[in-house]
Amino acid sequence: MTTAIERRTRLLGPHMTTFYRDPVHVARGEGVWLWGTDGRQYLDCYNNVPHVGHCHPRVVDAICTQARTLNTHTRYVHDMILDYGEALIAKFGHDLTSMLMVCSGSEANDVALRMAQAATGKIGIIGTDNTYHGNTTAVSQLNSSKVPVGGYQTHVRQVPSPDTMVPVGGSREGQAEAFAKGVEQAVAELEESGHGVSALIVCPYFANEGFPTLETGFLDRVIDVVRKAGGLIIADEVQPGFGRIGSHWWGHDKLGFSPDIVTLGKPMANGHPVAAVVTRHEILTSFQEAFKYFNTFGGNPVSAAAAMAVLNVIDDENLADNARDVGAYAVELLSELATRHDVIANVRGSGLFFGAELWRDGKPATDLCAAMVDEMRERGVLLHSVGRYSQTLKVRPPCVFSHENADQLVQVMDDALGAVK
Amino acid sequence: MTTAIERRTRLLGPHMTTFYRDPVHVARGEGVWLWGTDGRQYLDCYNNVPHVGHCHPRVVDAICTQARTLNTHTRYVHDMILDYGEALIAKFGHDLTSMLMVCSGSEANDVALRMAQAATGKIGIIGTDNTYHGNTTAVSQLNSSKVPVGGYQTHVRQVPSPDTMVPVGGSREGQAEAFAKGVEQAVAELEESGHGVSALIVCPYFANEGFPTLETGFLDRVIDVVRKAGGLIIADEVQPGFGRIGSHWWGHDKLGFSPDIVTLGKPMANGHPVAAVVTRHEILTSFQEAFKYFNTFGGNPVSAAAAMAVLNVIDDENLADNARDVGAYAVELLSELATRHDVIANVRGSGLFFGAELWRDGKPATDLCAAMVDEMRERGVLLHSVGRYSQTLKVRPPCVFSHENADQLVQVMDDALGAVK
Repeated sequence: MTTAIERRTRLLGPHMTTFYRDPVHVARGEGVWLWGTDGRQYLDCYNNVPHVGHCHPRVVDAICTQARTLNTHTRYVHDMILDYGEALIAKFGHDLTSMLMVCSGSEANDVALRMAQAATGKIGIIGTDNTYHGNTTAVSQLNSSKVPVGGYQTHVRQVPSPDTMVPVGGSREGQAEAFAKGVEQAVAELEESGHGVSALIVCPYFANEGFPTLETGFLDRVIDVVRKAGGLIIADEVQPGFGRIGSHWWGHDKLGFSPDIVTLGKPMANGHPVAAVVTRHEILTSFQEAFKYFNTFGGNPVSAAAAMAVLNVIDDENLADNARDVGAYAVELLSELATRHDVIANVRGSGLFFGAELWRDGKPATDLCAAMVDEMRERGVLLHSVGRYSQTLKVRPPCVFSHENADQLVQVMDDALGAVK
Repeated sequence: MTTAIERRTRLLGPHMTTFYRDPVHVARGEGVWLWGTDGRQYLDCYNNVPHVGHCHPRVVDAICTQARTLNTHTRYVHDMILDYGEALIAKFGHDLTSMLMVCSGSEANDVALRMAQAATGKIGIIGTDNTYHGNTTAVSQLNSSKVPVGGYQTHVRQVPSPDTMVPVGGSREGQAEAFAKGVEQAVAELEESGHGVSALIVCPYFANEGFPTLETGFLDRVIDVVRKAGGLIIADEVQPGFGRIGSHWWGHDKLGFSPDIVTLGKPMANGHPVAAVVTRHEILTSFQEAFKYFNTFGGNPVSAAAAMAVLNVIDDENLADNARDVGAYAVELLSELATRHDVIANVRGSGLFFGAELWRDGKPATDLCAAMVDEMRERGVLLHSVGRYSQTLKVRPPCVFSHENADQLVQVMDDALGAVK
């Protein structure tokens, strides 16, 4: 019999990677739980896309009701996108009052870069050197994992990413200034090359860089540098947004700055393919004047209904508060665990986006971290790794994650650390 | 009271265009019908996205059932994407046996261009000069409607589009050869510039170019030229695919050629945001080796279930046959109409993708065509225009369009032509 893995390889290609040495063949999901086709139950500590929990009934109902009524593009007038857009921008405390809906975070960032180029008349882009902003040709230029065919384009500059264990500039105290120096240098290079600076794009939680612990105001000097050069600030909120980090609805609020453009994606509709760019009215206008942009699926009534249900559930079920409380509790448990396991070099995070960085013999413990990911999967807990050396266990579950779920996670981590040593 | 149009302008920007002088405020859809919020019923002769009819119950049920069970990314193993992919590639009669699922036709074309670049090691791309392949930064380079900020990139070449009333090279008989000459020149320029030729990308129905009537074999010489230069052929089947053109499932089958890469989009899941790239296994492998590609929403179980339902409905309801029969009937009615209205210079099309080109005083009748689009909307029939001068009435309805619907369409067109003259 042909196995599912063989079918995948043949159909989806040899490099369509799966998580875990023994991939999970999934069948069903509910809340923080996933079930395999063999009936086995897993605690999902990793999937941020089902933001309000796998198969949340209110989101499913919203999708079904609207799909039965009408699904069409936005060249007709329909109320759902307007109702949603107004509810969404009410979640921003500054002048981001306009919105463009697309299908994926990649499309959102692809648009955001062009918005910045249209609004500034320049094309240079600055990102960090250990990040990911999506999969289109344009935003792939910001990804550091693989050099694109034809090479990196000259208008893209990558600056050293902030880090907790190996801070830019050598110390945590001096990191903000050292990071700003990297941006200053990139600005100078872009100006010298004639590209100029259209934007700095960052995830304000530096999620893919390993979510280093950063002070409020960390980016203030950087933002000053970019704005003085005429550039805009794009906050990629695909991972930290929608209350996940607990203390604030958005990562940029936690760091204490006001971006010019915000991009949203994965958790926005609990897995339904929808994403958005939120910006100032005049930036959206500049973009629309420079590019003739239309997105067939973006903002259709079903996508907007799904996204609206997610917003409502986060509010009605107080999921941002839950993220804050359960996240703090879990970090406390992990900190206690660190006192008993030397390999845990650092515990950090905010809300339901936290983790434990593993080091051994003075070096990032990449292999141990990979072994832990597989060992925990064997023990029924799904998580993954992140960081420049994939040395950090990353926990980013649906936001209905409970204190009891945190207990299970840390208990299994304790056991697994004992087993893989 | 703030109108919906005012809310749109404020929220979605001043250039978020709507169809029709008096935009339709839509509320509900079923089959070939749309209803406005005022209860008015419209015959939808334009929307190809609801391919099997607005709100088809089998598609809605597939979405609801899967959304209630599980929706997650493809780094777990799940059967739905495999079942769908195998059913999809069975619709291709050649060696296109692998697939990559994404969220939109734009993402599909963005990937297809990189597949060609990865497989050939070259970066040059050739498209036509009056087309549209999507909205990402990379594929926008192929759009002729607006010069991008920073200008067109040097590795992109646009060749003159085939046309029925104004053929390339001056005659319909010589058009295939003249079109091939344009491609030959683009190939020579790309080779001289050092970019080389990675691909020619065309819609095999030349849908946005005005769907000119072309003979089987029209592209044979072009394909020969591109392949001799080491390039691949990308068929953008977003508009003609899935049986719409009646005589064949795919546009490239109608023209009689075998592309290396096929892109799919809009109609694939009746409006649910999903799209795909279908190609040979070794091309997908080259792409995966050159780019570290992952698409979070692409191929999720709900998207795959929606797409599977569409495939099944097309087959079970014989919608390709219906497209062929009703399309032929409608073209016959339109041809008769042309004998009574001099302004109709040409009637053409295949299956449920047809139209009438309007000329007056020896020139494309752009204004008259725009007036017709609005007049027919006032009379309860929705269609739109296409062509280099927006001079052709374009009909591209859900594939459940009936003979009776065709009667209504042509009757209203007859009346409207009388009214707008």
